[in-house]
Amino acid sequence: MTSNKGIIIVVSGFSGAGKGTIMKELTGRYDRYALSVSATTRDPRPGEVNGREYFFVSNEEFEKLIAEDGLIEHAGYVDHYYGTPRKFVEDKLKEGKDVILEIEIQGALQIKKQYGDAVLLFVMPPSAKELKKRLTGRGTESSQVIDERLKRAREEAVGIENYDYIVINDDLDECVIRVHEIIDAAHNAPSRNLDFINTIRKELNEL
Amino acid sequence: MTSNKGIIIVVSGFSGAGKGTIMKELTGRYDRYALSVSATTRDPRPGEVNGREYFFVSNEEFEKLIAEDGLIEHAGYVDHYYGTPRKFVEDKLKEGKDVILEIEIQGALQIKKQYGDAVLLFVMPPSAKELKKRLTGRGTESSQVIDERLKRAREEAVGIENYDYIVINDDLDECVIRVHEIIDAAHNAPSRNLDFINTIRKELNEL
Repeated sequence: MTSNKGIIIVVSGFSGAGKGTIMKELTGRYDRYALSVSATTRDPRPGEVNGREYFFVSNEEFEKLIAEDGLIEHAGYVDHYYGTPRKFVEDKLKEGKDVILEIEIQGALQIKKQYGDAVLLFVMPPSAKELKKRLTGRGTESSQVIDERLKRAREEAVGIENYDYIVINDDLDECVIRVHEIIDAAHNAPSRNLDFINTIRKELNEL
Repeated sequence: MTSNKGIIIVVSGFSGAGKGTIMKELTGRYDRYALSVSATTRDPRPGEVNGREYFFVSNEEFEKLIAEDGLIEHAGYVDHYYGTPRKFVEDKLKEGKDVILEIEIQGALQIKKQYGDAVLLFVMPPSAKELKKRLTGRGTESSQVIDERLKRAREEAVGIENYDYIVINDDLDECVIRVHEIIDAAHNAPSRNLDFINTIRKELNEL
């Protein structure tokens, strides 16, 4: 019914809040979403595949992308660069897809500046204790890395009010439905339905 | 999960778009909503009951309500006053209910000024022709009244961009679900979840 134009959905949240799992579920369940793949200069973790989790690139390649205006946002995080390639996002929006970007707050704010009607979501754990438990439970990180992530979470928590919505990831299924509903609602903004509104206006004047 | 504080939901839309039916369904299905009953100086239509559709009051009584600051908004429409009694709305918000106000655009803008986080919805028919058909089909209005309502619709259509969301009432059931989802999504704004956000911040600092 309402707008079929694609929306940029930015998803941020503390490491360990479950962003990745939510996004995987969401894009698996609904055809409407396209998940943007970031470029990064960090090394792959075990199991990560180039072009699936990230495009793994060298510092030189990354800086070339910046120079060519090939990224719609980029940021540094724990000694590495992360950025969102422009072409994929703009192609998918044109196709009418909602494009999901899983990025940090600096990037989120860059996106909001360029794409004013992007929807910014912040995924939160039900409690800080639960966050620590999830980070520890992964078993892939040293306690030093976990401490760094918790430190980073404290910093990110300061910026939550810059987001349009928070989503609490307690029950995964409920959370995925909630994210989908929020995006659905966003499609109903008047600014995303100007063609329909103007058609009705025209029709009313012709009655 | 997220905020249990009540939100003011303003619902406007062309006469004949189906606002009343949507609101009746919504409040019938979900306990969470309280439907505000407006005061008006117009005469009851056949079947309307004082205190259910409206509080039917005299001009004098209405002006007394204004003087006592007993209305959170009021406006004139087709030679009559309409207004929203303050006490009911504020009592229900305190109880954690989402309070639905079915009012015209002048009132909607007054509400947005006083309650910045109110959610403004505009209900639209799928087309102007369908609107005229519904107005004619009611069979309760003279063609002069129908023409007045269409004229009014043209005027109201100018202000749609002041609303947060539009909802197209094509299929009633879908429309009710959509309205409920939009309100659900609104509860996830950070501004409505500051207690939760601040608790997590405090917990993160104590870890």
